[in-house]
Amino acid sequence: MKVGILGSGDVGQALGRGFVSRGHEVMIGSRTPHSDKLMAWAHKAGKGASTGSFADAASHGSVLVLATLGTAAEEVIDLAGPPKFKGKLLIDATVPLDFSRGMPPGLFVGTTDSLGERIQRKLPEARVVKCFNTVGNRQMVDPTYKGVEMMICGNDKAAKDEVTGILRDFGWSGSIDVGGIEGARWLEALVPLWVRVGISLDNWNNVFRVLHE
Amino acid sequence: MKVGILGSGDVGQALGRGFVSRGHEVMIGSRTPHSDKLMAWAHKAGKGASTGSFADAASHGSVLVLATLGTAAEEVIDLAGPPKFKGKLLIDATVPLDFSRGMPPGLFVGTTDSLGERIQRKLPEARVVKCFNTVGNRQMVDPTYKGVEMMICGNDKAAKDEVTGILRDFGWSGSIDVGGIEGARWLEALVPLWVRVGISLDNWNNVFRVLHE
Repeated sequence: MKVGILGSGDVGQALGRGFVSRGHEVMIGSRTPHSDKLMAWAHKAGKGASTGSFADAASHGSVLVLATLGTAAEEVIDLAGPPKFKGKLLIDATVPLDFSRGMPPGLFVGTTDSLGERIQRKLPEARVVKCFNTVGNRQMVDPTYKGVEMMICGNDKAAKDEVTGILRDFGWSGSIDVGGIEGARWLEALVPLWVRVGISLDNWNNVFRVLHE
Repeated sequence: MKVGILGSGDVGQALGRGFVSRGHEVMIGSRTPHSDKLMAWAHKAGKGASTGSFADAASHGSVLVLATLGTAAEEVIDLAGPPKFKGKLLIDATVPLDFSRGMPPGLFVGTTDSLGERIQRKLPEARVVKCFNTVGNRQMVDPTYKGVEMMICGNDKAAKDEVTGILRDFGWSGSIDVGGIEGARWLEALVPLWVRVGISLDNWNNVFRVLHE
């Protein structure tokens, strides 16, 4: 599978390593694709890892991952070129974190809308699935805790099934489908809570698990 | 301990039974304290269970629990009489659910404010702790799953310690303190997600557990 990752921060790098480790061809897109940081990432991730512009990465991938800062998400889509997303699976791992009032963060788009929905509206022909945004980047691939399902949402059932396959491959026990893309309101709202839990426990490998019968 | 519970729905009844079962004197406050429903509750809960008006229950309790519908919370406080809350621990189990657009619900107050904060502002001398709002009423006391900590928040450390003692007594392994009362924004936002998980799994005993080291 060819995977394009938009965003080269910790999340993008963690997911990129994960996809490479499963044998996929991964290109991370960035404003500075030849930076020392990204060269080091590609070297360490190994065969199948490359870097390019946002447009390159969006062209490269048949599956795309949006892993930018929340504040940069829409601009990065514009830089990549919206037509490139047509019909593609876009895994949206962003969170609209608002640090303008310091820590812990809020959300710059709240409970009557979400960044996931904004992105789906901006790209009506992409099959957006909100995923990975509820755990820290160190837990996204080969998570510490086994038997955990990740909560996901999106409007396209087949796209969610595809993501569920990816999650299983990454070491999750599957997914819990919390509905259409408007579920992103609540998956995104989990994150300020996750930050507060991290502060409380002084521990950043926390994972929300849904206990159920 | 004398406990006053404002609200006689499933949550108020579940918490009322829990407090009675631990030997506390519980009065549930309601607009209709002599209804068949509440008489049946008091009979079944046993010695130590009583019912009264909202004002009666607020006077009765040295610890108060707010367990009304979110939409009724402020009106019920007015009916009970705000001065009665002065200095008392108020466990806020409400969620500002908005069903005006059908299922699944949203929140009528979003991520820049919360019902927990509104309540704390309305009662500046009460020691409000947001608690119990993140699980279904059947899980609040003697939960199915052992070893789970409940996420709570509030401005008063001693009040949170007190709530933590109650949680342990109720069969939880303790609490995770997610900070000041503004944390209610995110504890409340967990609930629409909980509903979506319930829909997805067709199962309503789901509990969010924080997995951590």
